[in-house]
Amino acid sequence: MSTETTVPADTTDAEVDHLVRAAAAAAPAWVARTPTDRAAALTAVADALDAARDGLVPLAGRETHLPEGRLAGELRRTTFQLRLFAEVVTQGAYLDARIDHADPDWPMGAARPDLRRVNEPLGPVLVFAASNFPFAFSVAGGDTASALAAGCPVLLKAHPGHPRLSRRTGEIVVDALRGAGAPEGTFAVLHGLTAGTTALRHPDVRAAAFTGSQRAGRALFDIAAARPEPVPFYGELGSVNPAFVTPSAATQRAEQVAAGFVASFTMGVGQFCTKPGLLFVPRGSGFAERLAGVELPAGARMLNERLHAGYVERLGELRAHPAVRVLAEGADPLGELTGPTVLATSAQDFRAAPAELAAECFGPTALVVEYDDVAELPALAATLEGQLTATIQGSAGDDVADLVATLAGRAGRVLWNEWPTGVSVTHAQQHGGPYPATTAPTTTSVGTAAITRFLRPVAYQNMPEQFLPAALREDNPLGIPRLVDGRLAQRTQAPATS
Amino acid sequence: MSTETTVPADTTDAEVDHLVRAAAAAAPAWVARTPTDRAAALTAVADALDAARDGLVPLAGRETHLPEGRLAGELRRTTFQLRLFAEVVTQGAYLDARIDHADPDWPMGAARPDLRRVNEPLGPVLVFAASNFPFAFSVAGGDTASALAAGCPVLLKAHPGHPRLSRRTGEIVVDALRGAGAPEGTFAVLHGLTAGTTALRHPDVRAAAFTGSQRAGRALFDIAAARPEPVPFYGELGSVNPAFVTPSAATQRAEQVAAGFVASFTMGVGQFCTKPGLLFVPRGSGFAERLAGVELPAGARMLNERLHAGYVERLGELRAHPAVRVLAEGADPLGELTGPTVLATSAQDFRAAPAELAAECFGPTALVVEYDDVAELPALAATLEGQLTATIQGSAGDDVADLVATLAGRAGRVLWNEWPTGVSVTHAQQHGGPYPATTAPTTTSVGTAAITRFLRPVAYQNMPEQFLPAALREDNPLGIPRLVDGRLAQRTQAPATS
Repeated sequence: MSTETTVPADTTDAEVDHLVRAAAAAAPAWVARTPTDRAAALTAVADALDAARDGLVPLAGRETHLPEGRLAGELRRTTFQLRLFAEVVTQGAYLDARIDHADPDWPMGAARPDLRRVNEPLGPVLVFAASNFPFAFSVAGGDTASALAAGCPVLLKAHPGHPRLSRRTGEIVVDALRGAGAPEGTFAVLHGLTAGTTALRHPDVRAAAFTGSQRAGRALFDIAAARPEPVPFYGELGSVNPAFVTPSAATQRAEQVAAGFVASFTMGVGQFCTKPGLLFVPRGSGFAERLAGVELPAGARMLNERLHAGYVERLGELRAHPAVRVLAEGADPLGELTGPTVLATSAQDFRAAPAELAAECFGPTALVVEYDDVAELPALAATLEGQLTATIQGSAGDDVADLVATLAGRAGRVLWNEWPTGVSVTHAQQHGGPYPATTAPTTTSVGTAAITRFLRPVAYQNMPEQFLPAALREDNPLGIPRLVDGRLAQRTQAPATS
Repeated sequence: MSTETTVPADTTDAEVDHLVRAAAAAAPAWVARTPTDRAAALTAVADALDAARDGLVPLAGRETHLPEGRLAGELRRTTFQLRLFAEVVTQGAYLDARIDHADPDWPMGAARPDLRRVNEPLGPVLVFAASNFPFAFSVAGGDTASALAAGCPVLLKAHPGHPRLSRRTGEIVVDALRGAGAPEGTFAVLHGLTAGTTALRHPDVRAAAFTGSQRAGRALFDIAAARPEPVPFYGELGSVNPAFVTPSAATQRAEQVAAGFVASFTMGVGQFCTKPGLLFVPRGSGFAERLAGVELPAGARMLNERLHAGYVERLGELRAHPAVRVLAEGADPLGELTGPTVLATSAQDFRAAPAELAAECFGPTALVVEYDDVAELPALAATLEGQLTATIQGSAGDDVADLVATLAGRAGRVLWNEWPTGVSVTHAQQHGGPYPATTAPTTTSVGTAAITRFLRPVAYQNMPEQFLPAALREDNPLGIPRLVDGRLAQRTQAPATS
């Protein structure tokens, strides 16, 4: 049991090597556990974290300055997520099991052999924790849950923003996994920048996941790609999350839209990767003027000094830009209790420098862009880089089909009359998007589909039953959905071949 | 219509830029076509290629030295593949459509919004054709079929080994797509090394696929990863495809196993990425001695001079290795009509230099490794790099569960008592594997699952019906399988929300 008074020492290179090797050694035993066992282990972690709530939440509060209510809710989300992945494992659709029986008349022109394909775990996964969600995107967060569910051991690089909480959470995870019979080495926490890059270069690490800044994420992506044996790197690098208010919404629902926008961009002191940092509004609708007069919420301390310094610098750049004016600001916008800031510019000026004006500013700031005609919006949207989310505030009668299509080409999630902060963990969630929102546009880091990142398909050809994984045996002992001869078969199959 | 007498000129950088931009401009219209229309276009391409068979096959023969029967069969496989992807598009499971209806009681602790997620195409895809399958892995091959099926325009970098065939095939594809109503720019052929790298760096290219050598594939992977905006690079870089003969198979089925092995490693003059280049056999079983006396088939000209020169060099290295002896060889093994060669070494020597002895030798050569005890095999298998395939020749009673598990951890496909050459195009096929077999271990380049490489999920939150893609509308107008509130729903859904 750790004491809370000391910060964990950096993990040495020798320790990293030991822990990665232990994870590699644990991998076969961890994946060999039945789905029921693996689901039980995930649930045991969730139960242990819930049981430790009264210690974890205050510890998280001391290290992150986030309020207790928010942290308690985030911990609930985190344990819900672990239990949801336990269900995913038990249900088995994530295995994408496929059986093609031998077919002498396969129209390809050659007989089809008996082929059976199933998703198997990649092996040890390195997860880089984020600072802004000390539970949900940290030690026992979504990347950890989905990788463990996939059957991969996890090396967790702790975020230096909450080192004691990371250590304590790691102890709870390790104890719970051990208690549930997981092999030693299934989970370990690493501390320190060098430990992270050393682990990322370790030949036994088979994939990595990251949530954080574009600069750090790209540097780690480059390391993963430059390895002698490159590995998948699932980096979520953030986003400016544009929102578009149509003329009808600006006039018919002005108060509601303005209030929703302010609540969303100031939530969590603006430290969300889904914060709406850009709001396109119609000029002459009075909407910008309404925002200029809105009462902004009080500020709060940001997560850490480094983030605050980066925010002040980036906000300073924006404020100093000749095309940008301050529309509204809270108390002490550049000080320690960082009050919100609303900036404004014109669509014409925005179009002249989209990269400069649309770069993420991580904190409670948003830039309002006044446009003249709703027909401009698709072209304005097309100037934007890849995004996690894009939002339209409109009315059912608006002619925005082109805008929706343009945004769907640039963002992982497109919202209508809601706000992007508060990412629900569900089956249909997509938290991803084209670069630089992520380094892996074909995947998601939130929702049950996140498990596919840590799986690789393996086909077995003409393999005797006794050597097949349970998921592929003829009688479907796991009772999972399978694609059999091209048709979906949910129920147990009658044996068709010997 | 081209003449056959001239080789196509290299595509200039300006032409590449023009073609990539045309592909990007075609993308929205191509994806907006209904699934039925897109399926019809794929089928039209298949029909046009079949209709042109009498011209294409001899042209391919002149450029590749491959026999007519093989080429005619390969063309049949190629058009079958296009038609199979037409079925995949119509069936719609590849869309992985998911609907989570709004749920105020979602146990996460916050209400679940209405979320709907579907796979959408990445955008223009650059495909690098291979030399060894002038139809099936070239202009109208598997990567092209799966990318077009996904809704992505394709830029096809022709292989210099069959430039006239590439041009002619490209003309047929372009004409057939045009005739089926596909937008101009949906498909184009590029010629020349520089054209390929220029296209790979083009910002409008969203993904690339490659089949070829480890050296070329890694160089292109590095370019894709180093772009300002990195893109997925699906490289299939080949493999040595180890095969393991158990003592029981070596004694009970010696003649059959030896004949199957020789047929497989000499097929297509050994120019298959699935050629079994390593055969582990029990010492003292007489199996190596049988191979020494086997009658090897006649050689044939390899695909081109460059491949032949590389083969002669690599084979020379192996023959000169102090631990390697020649077990059997056909006529003129290093000459123009390249006869097959069987080399041999011991497990002990192999274990001392696995990287050196197991590196791919692209041509009609295999290395036999004599082991002492079947219990050694998992450890021997563990010395190998990532593989496309691994094969066991055994008997039902063999104690090889550990070997199967070890091979499944290293190869995309594990075979029992069959041979890896001749990759069937099916739903359950997996043609992939850990690096260096591929640069993308989570994907396949053969089989219907190959389509997922060119798709990215997009979620729509609270989106009105009129702005949703058809795949996500409440009444399921496409009649596709969908995951609704976590349960698979094959049939049309009754409207549940307004």
